[in-house]
Amino acid sequence: MSACFDLLHSDNLSSARRGVLQTRRGPIETPVFMPVGTQATVKGILPEALKEIGAQIILANTYHLFLRPGHDLVERAGGLHEYMNWDRPILTDSGGFQVFSLGDLRSIDEEGVVFQSHLDGSSHKLTPELSIAVQEALGADIIMAFDECIPYPSTREYTDESTALSGRWAKRCKQARKDDDALLFGIVQGGMFPDLRQRSAEELIEIGFDGYAVGGLSVGEGAELMYEMMEQTLPHLPVDAPRYIMGVGTPENLVEAVSRGADMFDCVMPTRNARNGVLFTGFGKISIKQARYREDREPIDPDCSCYVCRHYSRSYLRHLYQSNEILASVLNTHHNLHYYLDLMARMREAIATDRFDEFKTDFYAKRQPE
Amino acid sequence: MSACFDLLHSDNLSSARRGVLQTRRGPIETPVFMPVGTQATVKGILPEALKEIGAQIILANTYHLFLRPGHDLVERAGGLHEYMNWDRPILTDSGGFQVFSLGDLRSIDEEGVVFQSHLDGSSHKLTPELSIAVQEALGADIIMAFDECIPYPSTREYTDESTALSGRWAKRCKQARKDDDALLFGIVQGGMFPDLRQRSAEELIEIGFDGYAVGGLSVGEGAELMYEMMEQTLPHLPVDAPRYIMGVGTPENLVEAVSRGADMFDCVMPTRNARNGVLFTGFGKISIKQARYREDREPIDPDCSCYVCRHYSRSYLRHLYQSNEILASVLNTHHNLHYYLDLMARMREAIATDRFDEFKTDFYAKRQPE
Repeated sequence: MSACFDLLHSDNLSSARRGVLQTRRGPIETPVFMPVGTQATVKGILPEALKEIGAQIILANTYHLFLRPGHDLVERAGGLHEYMNWDRPILTDSGGFQVFSLGDLRSIDEEGVVFQSHLDGSSHKLTPELSIAVQEALGADIIMAFDECIPYPSTREYTDESTALSGRWAKRCKQARKDDDALLFGIVQGGMFPDLRQRSAEELIEIGFDGYAVGGLSVGEGAELMYEMMEQTLPHLPVDAPRYIMGVGTPENLVEAVSRGADMFDCVMPTRNARNGVLFTGFGKISIKQARYREDREPIDPDCSCYVCRHYSRSYLRHLYQSNEILASVLNTHHNLHYYLDLMARMREAIATDRFDEFKTDFYAKRQPE
Repeated sequence: MSACFDLLHSDNLSSARRGVLQTRRGPIETPVFMPVGTQATVKGILPEALKEIGAQIILANTYHLFLRPGHDLVERAGGLHEYMNWDRPILTDSGGFQVFSLGDLRSIDEEGVVFQSHLDGSSHKLTPELSIAVQEALGADIIMAFDECIPYPSTREYTDESTALSGRWAKRCKQARKDDDALLFGIVQGGMFPDLRQRSAEELIEIGFDGYAVGGLSVGEGAELMYEMMEQTLPHLPVDAPRYIMGVGTPENLVEAVSRGADMFDCVMPTRNARNGVLFTGFGKISIKQARYREDREPIDPDCSCYVCRHYSRSYLRHLYQSNEILASVLNTHHNLHYYLDLMARMREAIATDRFDEFKTDFYAKRQPE
């Protein structure tokens, strides 16, 4: 099942790994960060700019596109790639996470989930079969199994039952799959219970997927517990398949997850923070709205090579933010995504040259306390 | 005074003219449209994209930059060009129009205008001398004289007195000028009274400016009266100096003004309309939010060659607009400015090849009733 993944190199001091994920729209160098393009657009950045800063793949949200403009419309338009002018790979989530976090949940049973749209209150039912059909209609290159997202904290009993249900749904997702050229990933659940994580992983491996995601992390459990859950989960996954930590995270989270053997990530943090004026740098986050930047003629990060840092000062970016200008979001998004993608590129390089440990030491040494 | 302008060709069937305006940052081919960059940014478009679509010069608003971030700060940052990453010419308005339209006007006397900021209510005084100093601090390549903007309708008595005051202010602006490398334009007022327009023009010519603007149009008087005022004003201006119609207008307004001998224009219409989902095409305006475009796979304008029309459908642009996405404003702005700049380029070409009449017939023939 995992012929799609070539493990190129493993770090000798950590579990970090360098690989290549083959998709029908070309190879993806891992570890990789996937910018989030919720509504058929990565907010505030053009596809050409995404390519310029090295985005290899983006994520699109099935829940949002199912509701608006509708997967049927996107399919008739030639698929999501054509619709949004993006010809590199797209991974779609299953819609599960948003059904539970955004929709007004009505009921969940063995068959699926009934929810009301956050847009207009209309009632919809999402099942494993429909989730796969929607993702295939969108033309996703990587499709995620439909699962129940477990709130944090949850009891062992609830987590046990939910994880078992997600396991049965994962099997139905595999059976529902029609587009064999797309990759299908299963999602390990199990909450914060290591034995349930292990059982979930084993069930998914038994079913057999092209890759394996770890869901239900970064839900409020704190970084230490999250890292522990990664450690309790990743070793149970096949070494020759890609491993995707969903919805994670901060730059520190990415470095720690890579060092624990994770290959793929997505998170709204770089794009959402950008729109709120929070910018990532090698020395930590800065909030561009602060008065201290009023006349600061330095770029966001003097060590950054991105378009924004080459052409604009902190003073100008603060002015744009204070003036509620569209270019504030555009420039901040460009810089933050460049930071995330560059961070991944530097990790790939470090792993390939057996200097990941050195990279990590340097990464932490440069950061200033917030 | 008008050594800055080369009149290359005059149309034989109309008053349309093709010229080149020389500035310290290079030549500007006229007739020209200047995108409006109010707050040190043309809303929703990067400088590189502005260049790609052929923007030769942009306009910046003295009133806004005076209040935020402050012309002193911009000057210390190396000037507006450096601050906003734009190395082509910039024309600044005098601040007069915004003082009268945005500020909370306190008093106007011979010396100048006291007003309260629309941002924080703080009190400021703007005089002809300060307006020139602010524009020079910003580093403008073309500086506008400070004038009083006359409301429409206004009595002859009010218009007479106001126009005389603006004339005295124009003289003080010329005397206050220090940056001899920048061009200084006077502004003809006179409201809707042809003899006052003529007197204003003659006063300004007596003072002597590098170029002459026509202010106080497109203030609610209707297209026919506006065209009549152009006809009553432009012939009184030197044939060898650039003529700038301020704050105008629709595509039709531009064609009509060019045919009456105008060379320069600015207007927020293409950028503001873009953010409201109103798009310009060769067959007229369309409102992209309309349900009829929900699944329309055509580009905005099938005859348009811009980046947006080459890559995106009306359906996708409607989806972005309905979803309140940043890229809705970005893509719509790009298209609308391309339309305006391309319209000017086609007029320049038509004048140069003695086919302006043909161009104008074709321009109107393609438009559909709204």
